Amino acid sequence: MSETVAEVGEFRLIERFTRHFDTTPAVLLGPGDDAAVVAAPDARVVACTDMLVEGNHFRLDWCSAADVGHKAAAANLADIAAMGARPTALLAAVAAPQDTPAEWLEGLASGLATEAAAVGAAVVGGDTTRGDQLTITVTALGDLEGRAPVTRGGALPGDVLALAGRIGWAAAGLNVLSRGFRSPGALVGAYRRPQPPYAAGVDAALMGVHAMIDVSDGLLSDLGHIAKASGVAIHVDTAALPTPETMRNAAEALGSDARTWMLTGGEDHALAATFAPDVILPEGWRRIGTVGEGTGITVNGTRWKGPTGWDHFPEAK
Amino acid sequence: MSETVAEVGEFRLIERFTRHFDTTPAVLLGPGDDAAVVAAPDARVVACTDMLVEGNHFRLDWCSAADVGHKAAAANLADIAAMGARPTALLAAVAAPQDTPAEWLEGLASGLATEAAAVGAAVVGGDTTRGDQLTITVTALGDLEGRAPVTRGGALPGDVLALAGRIGWAAAGLNVLSRGFRSPGALVGAYRRPQPPYAAGVDAALMGVHAMIDVSDGLLSDLGHIAKASGVAIHVDTAALPTPETMRNAAEALGSDARTWMLTGGEDHALAATFAPDVILPEGWRRIGTVGEGTGITVNGTRWKGPTGWDHFPEAK
Repeated sequence: MSETVAEVGEFRLIERFTRHFDTTPAVLLGPGDDAAVVAAPDARVVACTDMLVEGNHFRLDWCSAADVGHKAAAANLADIAAMGARPTALLAAVAAPQDTPAEWLEGLASGLATEAAAVGAAVVGGDTTRGDQLTITVTALGDLEGRAPVTRGGALPGDVLALAGRIGWAAAGLNVLSRGFRSPGALVGAYRRPQPPYAAGVDAALMGVHAMIDVSDGLLSDLGHIAKASGVAIHVDTAALPTPETMRNAAEALGSDARTWMLTGGEDHALAATFAPDVILPEGWRRIGTVGEGTGITVNGTRWKGPTGWDHFPEAK
Repeated sequence: MSETVAEVGEFRLIERFTRHFDTTPAVLLGPGDDAAVVAAPDARVVACTDMLVEGNHFRLDWCSAADVGHKAAAANLADIAAMGARPTALLAAVAAPQDTPAEWLEGLASGLATEAAAVGAAVVGGDTTRGDQLTITVTALGDLEGRAPVTRGGALPGDVLALAGRIGWAAAGLNVLSRGFRSPGALVGAYRRPQPPYAAGVDAALMGVHAMIDVSDGLLSDLGHIAKASGVAIHVDTAALPTPETMRNAAEALGSDARTWMLTGGEDHALAATFAPDVILPEGWRRIGTVGEGTGITVNGTRWKGPTGWDHFPEAK
């Protein structure tokens, strides 16, 4: 059997944890001191933090340690991308029960490091401590490379609504797993290891995107944040969002609704954004609707009222 | 009765949490978007993260919510100070059980904000989620103002060892509380609300300090990190560390040892550092020993072997 966290002890554990972390030219001082030092060439730093709790955000029987590391990194790196910034570094804090295998924490570290490396970032520091419930907090840092940050508040009536990345896949995978199945692998894999379209965030910023958000709670819910922050109405056209066959088949087999997965499922970390109407969308982005005067979200002209249902008498369209 | 987090719901909770956060000129984009944007005028950012878990790092019957916020902020801000940097921003992630009073999270937010403001920093973002155990992860960012980061690795034989801030007070306060007492208030207060000597970190950096560390685990243990990272021996002279009367009296009353509190108690977040022998120490710093050739830590010439005891046959002195 693998040693537990308690057997390994804090300092050896930190050693085993941090040895998975590569470095990059932006890492001026890596793990091992009171704090890390990371290059911020733009003289501004973009920063966000996100916490994953076992049983709430992940289950040990559904996800490997590396999956959890991947997921925790992806959730934060996608937030940095949604600001139009390039991720530079991650910090990771972990609370673990004393009987957690040290190997599990090594797997977590390797998942974090691998996903960070995929976007040219590195894990530069962290903290490990004892807790009753496995809990992982990742903080991501990013650089704007001289550009203005892309907020949720810049959408304008007349804008094109566009999407990069996948929606509904993670929700479908979670549904499959929660019914006790392990396939289709494409769906389960999407839940375990989201693939945010990181590069699409910087690409959109370079094209002068007006507003952008990381789709982590669900497309309609997150578009609601743009609508509210920008003071606009957002109209989604589902003709632009065909249901992938794998997802449609899984939904039929499970008696679920693929459309609901796509419109309200989170955790794929797609990027949603609005652009000026005459934009030539960067690669990976597709039009999925429009921005208008008013408030709230409509889908094919029907007003969406949030997870609880639909308002069939929209006040604005 | 106060509403619980479950009753308030995530979005209103975030609103109530973030309304405690002031802003500063360094906050270019505060809470409410996918990520915050903070000024990094030095084109480098110092970053650290620290996790506090209920029952392990704090107890609800011993600390108010604001105390916990203060403590979580202080632990991170002291790490930034120990690099010789000036704190600019905090991010805070909180996992809380569903029956946590929303007021408690507001108290936490106010404690975080107040302690950040004390050093001119602001809370710029965060995350709230459900968890079985109250868990708070704070990330701090800081600016080096053009200076080199002060690491643990720069101590040189011949250096003066110096200390800024208090040691043993938090350990004494914890001991008092754990025996069921609530006074002396000076000790209990020190445990609840550490007062790290933040300014002493930047002052030391300006004086060309060689190595510095935040004393969070205990003076001897943390000096051990400097000794190891620098490849030196560190000799502590307790004549330079008189026991405060309040602490001596409390130790007598409780049958404890004030000297042990001072040498091995953490959580006061004092700063320990080594300077060139001819230095004029900045205000707030006092000499407490010397740096020599060799390895490890001695106290009045006796070798310290870590929390487990003493080696009375030191190989280096």
